[in-house]
Amino acid sequence: MSLAKTPQPPYYAVIFSSIRREGNQKEYLQMALKMEQLAKEQVGYLGVESAREEVGITVSYWKDLVSIKAWKEQVDHQVAQKMGREKWYKSYITRIALVERDYSFEN
Amino acid sequence: MSLAKTPQPPYYAVIFSSIRREGNQKEYLQMALKMEQLAKEQVGYLGVESAREEVGITVSYWKDLVSIKAWKEQVDHQVAQKMGREKWYKSYITRIALVERDYSFEN
Repeated sequence: MSLAKTPQPPYYAVIFSSIRREGNQKEYLQMALKMEQLAKEQVGYLGVESAREEVGITVSYWKDLVSIKAWKEQVDHQVAQKMGREKWYKSYITRIALVERDYSFEN
Repeated sequence: MSLAKTPQPPYYAVIFSSIRREGNQKEYLQMALKMEQLAKEQVGYLGVESAREEVGITVSYWKDLVSIKAWKEQVDHQVAQKMGREKWYKSYITRIALVERDYSFEN
């Protein structure tokens, strides 16, 4: 995984922060990978960054609110969200945020 | 670390995504901890979430752009940013984003 190569702002970020329940690790990782691949195919998708320690953070980047809404309602993603609430997550917060500016550094 | 207990939107998120260079791990972790503690003392600070695997993601939450600017310019933080560019990071992107809405789940 590398840093997402997003375009010039403005664009949107969906910050998904979560605490996992124990267990179901293999199933969870398979679904996470599947969803990452599926997200890439959606209209308006701009990139993703993800890391997990105690807290997991996945930030996906999107062109606009329309594309975020469509992804939220995508059928396979709906199934994954339901499984997330029933089996995988102790708690999560999803934050929808408008990226107003960004600055980068490369050594 | 737990999920940040942020207030009702709107508020701001600073999404700091980075790739580390190898080495200087102890020094880096000490400074990261010091900066996390220092951030908590700043006016307008609302919380932080952080995780690192291949990519490191730290999302800090702030009341407004004024508080983000003050934190960016805080003297000790300036020193840390300089050390980051000189020693710790291969690359990073900082994104300033207005959180428009959020929704949470707790099991």
